[in-house]
Amino acid sequence: MARPLPPAVLVLAGHDPTSGAGLVADSEAVAANGGWALTVPTALTVQNGDNVRRVVPVDSAIMQETVDTLGDMPVAAIKIGLLADAATLDAAARIVRRFPGVPVVIDPVLKAGGGAELSTPDLCQRFVDNLIGQADILTPNRHELARLTPELPDDNDTERAVALLSAGCQGVLVTATDDPLPSSNDATVTHTLHTPDNARQWQWPRLAAAYHGSGCTLAAALATRLAAGDTLTVACEQAQHFAWQSLSHGYRPAHGQRLPNRFFAYR
Amino acid sequence: MARPLPPAVLVLAGHDPTSGAGLVADSEAVAANGGWALTVPTALTVQNGDNVRRVVPVDSAIMQETVDTLGDMPVAAIKIGLLADAATLDAAARIVRRFPGVPVVIDPVLKAGGGAELSTPDLCQRFVDNLIGQADILTPNRHELARLTPELPDDNDTERAVALLSAGCQGVLVTATDDPLPSSNDATVTHTLHTPDNARQWQWPRLAAAYHGSGCTLAAALATRLAAGDTLTVACEQAQHFAWQSLSHGYRPAHGQRLPNRFFAYR
Repeated sequence: MARPLPPAVLVLAGHDPTSGAGLVADSEAVAANGGWALTVPTALTVQNGDNVRRVVPVDSAIMQETVDTLGDMPVAAIKIGLLADAATLDAAARIVRRFPGVPVVIDPVLKAGGGAELSTPDLCQRFVDNLIGQADILTPNRHELARLTPELPDDNDTERAVALLSAGCQGVLVTATDDPLPSSNDATVTHTLHTPDNARQWQWPRLAAAYHGSGCTLAAALATRLAAGDTLTVACEQAQHFAWQSLSHGYRPAHGQRLPNRFFAYR
Repeated sequence: MARPLPPAVLVLAGHDPTSGAGLVADSEAVAANGGWALTVPTALTVQNGDNVRRVVPVDSAIMQETVDTLGDMPVAAIKIGLLADAATLDAAARIVRRFPGVPVVIDPVLKAGGGAELSTPDLCQRFVDNLIGQADILTPNRHELARLTPELPDDNDTERAVALLSAGCQGVLVTATDDPLPSSNDATVTHTLHTPDNARQWQWPRLAAAYHGSGCTLAAALATRLAAGDTLTVACEQAQHFAWQSLSHGYRPAHGQRLPNRFFAYR
């Protein structure tokens, strides 16, 4: 009765004890999309539904040793989330280089939903210089997009995305839920996939609440779709659909942000 | 459309990058049984499908701070797995005392499936002295049962279980998959629930393969059933059923032990 292992997604992510975001959330999104997560913690975080209180980066040597020891477990895609210091960022870059040809999704986690800063200008620059060039696709929200391109003063998302494409990544999916435009009274949210020769947009009904872990959910689902062989555009569309469904079926704890229900198809 | 959060299970466990066992496995078992996992890492491990190479206990102060920060998120059950040193064991004991009346499932993870030792005689003794008294139910396999009661020389599981009940826990579910008796040519495996006034047995068809994470799967499912309000006996039966199904629908990686499929009901 035993079946072969589903496509494996190597997840490098921070651990969030609420399971709303981070490594556990990623593994849920991978499982719900038919994959198997191999998870490498990049940091432990102390947080609740309101905000992040403390971030403790994992020893980068342990990250490296963990991946070395996984050995020949087949990796069909890589998803990278929180990298909270230079050492873990550099370790992630080294790890990705071990898997040539494997699609890489990088979610630049720079700020917690509750407002806590998870990065610095120097670390953002290091991210652009050392890691972005290895990404098949980057999934910033508008705030993160601006943080990664501080040299561009205006509010032109396209110009910012083109700058990141110039840094070497193959695609930038900019989500616009987090940072409403003046026109956000609109009942829709528009996400935009920028590629070197195109831009493609999707509109989704705006959800009223604030959610914890929406970015992780999107990026991990996207990596799993790429692991299964979808094209970039199809994977982006499927992942947005999955994330929107997870949020719209989400849970409302007694306090704090709502939590995604990544198993909405089952419960 | 938002719903209340499902019953939350506080999981204290080691992290296993393969997702076969440990914190991610626990969160899967909790989710598949209708709960929501709050996860506190007790250790990071470096391992693959064959064996555990290295165990790095988490700073016990971070464990404590993590639980303090979760604050008023409601905890309906607690599941404890790997405690790899005295400091994290003592932190787990302190954390449990913060939740009086909440059912506590303790899986004594003392040895990796591949054979690596994860405990010492001193740590086993500390486990009995400081933690067992706070357990509603303990889920050792036969090897672990023997390790926790080294003063009892013979092969009498009942006597060993009674010794642990005397140490203060309310129930001991002894699983017999790991360490076959001479009669293990039998096509069945017998698991036994010992309580102060009774012993109850269940028989399950023996599965031919070796699995990584069967104990975590059982204990986390059991905690989730208790969180949902099941009685101890019903929860034990349901958890065994869930674990058996997860294993029988398991995955066969290219190398190493098979991996449970905790979402067998969906895929």
